[in-house]
Amino acid sequence: MNSPRVEIINTGSELLLGRVRDSHLSWLGRKLFEIGLRVTRQTTVPDGGVIRDALLEAFSRAEIVIVTGGLGPTTDDITREVVAELLGLRLELHQETLNRIQERCLKRGFVFQDRMSRQAMVPEGAIVMPNDHGTAPGLHIAPTEGVSWITPHLFLMPGPPRELQPMASAYVIPYLAGLVSGKESHECRIYKVVGMGESLLEASVGLELSKRGDIEVGYCARPNEVDFRLIAPKAILDEVEPLILAIVGDHLVSDDTGSMEEVLVNYLREAGATLATAESCTGGAIADSITDVAGSSDVFLGGYIAYSNECKSRMLGLDPELIRKHGAVSAEVVEGMARGVLDKTSASHALAVTGIAGPGGGTPEKPVGTVWLALASRGDDKTIVWKENFPMDRITFKQMVVQSALDRLRKRLKGSAR
Amino acid sequence: MNSPRVEIINTGSELLLGRVRDSHLSWLGRKLFEIGLRVTRQTTVPDGGVIRDALLEAFSRAEIVIVTGGLGPTTDDITREVVAELLGLRLELHQETLNRIQERCLKRGFVFQDRMSRQAMVPEGAIVMPNDHGTAPGLHIAPTEGVSWITPHLFLMPGPPRELQPMASAYVIPYLAGLVSGKESHECRIYKVVGMGESLLEASVGLELSKRGDIEVGYCARPNEVDFRLIAPKAILDEVEPLILAIVGDHLVSDDTGSMEEVLVNYLREAGATLATAESCTGGAIADSITDVAGSSDVFLGGYIAYSNECKSRMLGLDPELIRKHGAVSAEVVEGMARGVLDKTSASHALAVTGIAGPGGGTPEKPVGTVWLALASRGDDKTIVWKENFPMDRITFKQMVVQSALDRLRKRLKGSAR
Repeated sequence: MNSPRVEIINTGSELLLGRVRDSHLSWLGRKLFEIGLRVTRQTTVPDGGVIRDALLEAFSRAEIVIVTGGLGPTTDDITREVVAELLGLRLELHQETLNRIQERCLKRGFVFQDRMSRQAMVPEGAIVMPNDHGTAPGLHIAPTEGVSWITPHLFLMPGPPRELQPMASAYVIPYLAGLVSGKESHECRIYKVVGMGESLLEASVGLELSKRGDIEVGYCARPNEVDFRLIAPKAILDEVEPLILAIVGDHLVSDDTGSMEEVLVNYLREAGATLATAESCTGGAIADSITDVAGSSDVFLGGYIAYSNECKSRMLGLDPELIRKHGAVSAEVVEGMARGVLDKTSASHALAVTGIAGPGGGTPEKPVGTVWLALASRGDDKTIVWKENFPMDRITFKQMVVQSALDRLRKRLKGSAR
Repeated sequence: MNSPRVEIINTGSELLLGRVRDSHLSWLGRKLFEIGLRVTRQTTVPDGGVIRDALLEAFSRAEIVIVTGGLGPTTDDITREVVAELLGLRLELHQETLNRIQERCLKRGFVFQDRMSRQAMVPEGAIVMPNDHGTAPGLHIAPTEGVSWITPHLFLMPGPPRELQPMASAYVIPYLAGLVSGKESHECRIYKVVGMGESLLEASVGLELSKRGDIEVGYCARPNEVDFRLIAPKAILDEVEPLILAIVGDHLVSDDTGSMEEVLVNYLREAGATLATAESCTGGAIADSITDVAGSSDVFLGGYIAYSNECKSRMLGLDPELIRKHGAVSAEVVEGMARGVLDKTSASHALAVTGIAGPGGGTPEKPVGTVWLALASRGDDKTIVWKENFPMDRITFKQMVVQSALDRLRKRLKGSAR
């Protein structure tokens, strides 16, 4: 099979109503790329009969179709039935699955409901993928030989990510890796660039690379950052990398697929340094994002969430008079917070932030979005203090502040770590 | 216009490669529902020519089509050009937009690149939606009268959420609200249910409600939680609510669309109570999720992120001997952390967690996923201490622990607050 096309169909009205944010595409997209496959299209349809149209369309375009959701026990879950009808397959009871469901109910103290047995009905000939984290099994229907039209490899998978992901890792990904083995594998390398717009990036290096014809070049702009994406065999990427590094230079945050947090944790580890934090307006988001990195406990000691003024004084030993005089959102207070962290912990670096996330609390002098940040380092009397203004919704505000704080520390560490 | 269908087309190879997770569908889905519109389908296509097929298909099905992305300055951004070609519209220079882009470059200290002027090219007759947070303007192409086939309302919008969202709020949503005004508006009410599976929920109340024919009933299962979703005019939802409350009873987390965090902040406010936290394995995620709620500063004082053992002792006054004897992940230590928070702050309630997020650090006695949680309340000598096991990836582990901690506090507050 030569470069099979993969389509993902997500079912679920909650996705279209905006009540749940899909994570399957990003998770599956990465896993499939790793084995040399590209998702060529993704579609979201509501619960109910529309799934039928979406399936027929995908069948006409793709060799591999992955459907998520609609395998539950309730009446709005009809993926299994629609597929069986569409392919002319009888639904048969799969005793082993029924036993698993009944055992699961017993173990968790739930009463077995008759309607749960629908989940044990399987289209004839389908391969059952057991679900270790829920009741609905996954189903794999392989292309049928000798029928008048050709069906793709069809995978029906449960909607909850913690059920789908282990099932995909155990079965779907290894199976598909076997199908496409031998294909020349491509690598996706993403250069995160800060302080250089995508136009300039394209003019100075991107255009030349895409003219070669053997590299797929892409750009994705984000707040303060552009992802400069190259897809090609590893040898070609290695060949052009020196050129990219020479042109992008200091604007480069990371030359691999690592996040800012991963880069920081590595830098700290290489420098033999540690970090602690004092957060007000971000409410722990800096620490939360760093501790998402496995192994961060090597370099992250802990932090203070000094949300109230009382906490700023009690946790960090800040003089209440300082807050009264300058306000909680001020250069003086954020510097005091950062120095307080160095006093109270053994960390080599301290990051502190205090600001107004909104929607309330702004004043003409300090509007919503104002934030003061500080970076203090042990053995260095000078604390770096800076101000930003991110007049966005609360969640984006927090993300931007986290990014600004981490990037400052990254720049400081860059010299010592590399 | 009677119940127009809305389709969203997301363009961007980064979405299909799994490098960026889409947020447009969930954001737009909610905003559109509020004005009486439902997204009937969403499609993701890569950068490049495929957008043409996706547009033609959407035109045949929907009255309103919203395209996100592909309006940037680089060569992989071709949405504008494809739409102009497809609709037979000439691209004309929009001088005002060109001026804005040049001014923006000046202000931000970027050199104006010739290729940026592509972003000022506008299909004839299109309405330009100015972009206050980036260079690419949005475009609205209204249905053309007198042509042989009917086009929908077409909105082309920039891909970055912080550019798209203000533009949609300022222009697209108000415009569409005007189009559909007068339509009977439906409400979407979501009952978050904990400890009652979706099968039982359907058997005991859901099936009866869906038989009525005037209520759309849906279920969405998540770790430890089911969203039980009803869509109907407000009067009908008010009518059936007592029945639901009677059956679901204590399993109900929230009877509105509020998140667990919003419910908690309200409960704390109503009870005149405050909260502080001590987190180890969650690294600030509990505090982070609470401080996502606007107004949380009324009730959330602050927290300690005691990630290292040293921090557990220094921040919370925990006897290092206790950690040596029982280990950092133990009932004794988590209780000490919670009591420490009450000692060190003036909070009325304290939540503490310590566990092993993995992938490293597990032992046969305390495998990865083990976590101890504690809830201590002022004036109550008894600390509630409990253990959970969430053997999942690091991010899901953190989410599950946050959920478990918040739910325990919710249950404690429920009596006093309501």
